Amino acid sequence: MKVSVVKNILEANDRIAQENRAIFDEKDLLVFNLMSSPGAGKTSLLEKTIDALKEDLKIGVIEGDIQSSQDAERIAEKGIPVVQINTGGACHLDGNMIRDTFKEFDFDALDLLVVENVGNLVCPAEFKVGEDFKAMILSVTEGEDKPAKYPLMFHESKVLLINKIDLLPYVDCSVEKIKEETLKINPGMTIFEISCKTGEGLDAWYNWVREEVKTRRSARKQ
Amino acid sequence: MKVSVVKNILEANDRIAQENRAIFDEKDLLVFNLMSSPGAGKTSLLEKTIDALKEDLKIGVIEGDIQSSQDAERIAEKGIPVVQINTGGACHLDGNMIRDTFKEFDFDALDLLVVENVGNLVCPAEFKVGEDFKAMILSVTEGEDKPAKYPLMFHESKVLLINKIDLLPYVDCSVEKIKEETLKINPGMTIFEISCKTGEGLDAWYNWVREEVKTRRSARKQ
Repeated sequence: MKVSVVKNILEANDRIAQENRAIFDEKDLLVFNLMSSPGAGKTSLLEKTIDALKEDLKIGVIEGDIQSSQDAERIAEKGIPVVQINTGGACHLDGNMIRDTFKEFDFDALDLLVVENVGNLVCPAEFKVGEDFKAMILSVTEGEDKPAKYPLMFHESKVLLINKIDLLPYVDCSVEKIKEETLKINPGMTIFEISCKTGEGLDAWYNWVREEVKTRRSARKQ
Repeated sequence: MKVSVVKNILEANDRIAQENRAIFDEKDLLVFNLMSSPGAGKTSLLEKTIDALKEDLKIGVIEGDIQSSQDAERIAEKGIPVVQINTGGACHLDGNMIRDTFKEFDFDALDLLVVENVGNLVCPAEFKVGEDFKAMILSVTEGEDKPAKYPLMFHESKVLLINKIDLLPYVDCSVEKIKEETLKINPGMTIFEISCKTGEGLDAWYNWVREEVKTRRSARKQ
């Protein structure tokens, strides 16, 4: 009984996510869904990425939080459109919540929409929101055992950013082991090693995002 | 509709948790439910706590993970009884999962049972398992904004362990701010500042646990 309820919720969500996706397609908008544990660096990565790309790309952000609007305020300081979703307790964003933000955006004026999910390494991986792909962050302070322990998010994501590499001298964590365990679960994962604090590794990420926007457009035009 | 389904699940869980609690009461067993984000240090804290207390207290552990048994293996090395629950995808432990482990334990031979929940700062806070209290860990690498962003867990817990204080020189995080924000949400929270790596602050925690076991017993005998 419980399983069938959950399954119905997921199916209903998938339908809404597909409808969202059709709208994003029509607007030629690249959308990614950014997920991680609390405090892994989602908002910091967004701040850096916006600074680096905002001359080239018009970026919008949807901020998901249980409550509070601290992250949306941080993003709004960058002078780009941002909408806060407060889930009021729910542990992830779903397609319907994303849909509710559409009236707040002018999608014709955007190239890239980033959805920052609630900080949670488990539940957001189950729910599509209409994104082109899921991106995830793991910080080295969380430890190298996380791919094996939270496999769904590693399986569902197209790109993994291993963050806080500036802390590697002070923590017991092997980036090689994270990569090895990740590729067992998801052999196609694109992986970046970054520090949002020092900026190390971020140029490769920025270029990858630029390419993704371009690739999506040319695919669309064919 | 969705809300009422969730409410029924929570109510059914509360009933099972109460039944579990009655069994723990009968056996004079202190039970706490340990929660945090992935990688905040739940298993490391348990390893240290078992080493420090196992001469004085007979300790058992229930390990909750989505899949894998790495944590249970770490705890089993301490020579104490440990049972692994694999939730198979579920983001938290519930009363029923805990109930299923009872046949594996001899509660008459235990003073303290620790339930290590799935790494998730959101969902486990909603589900009672029959514990005397919830304990939570926040690592300083997660940032000082977490109490305001994930208030339920801070509200539901009796004790907060602020872990990885050895990393404070390298991260932008104020322990004072964490404490201030926590006490706004939960003025009665007992707070410890610890490092499972260096051992700093752990003696106060060990003594507190010893006192909790004693207090529970004398309350029971009256």
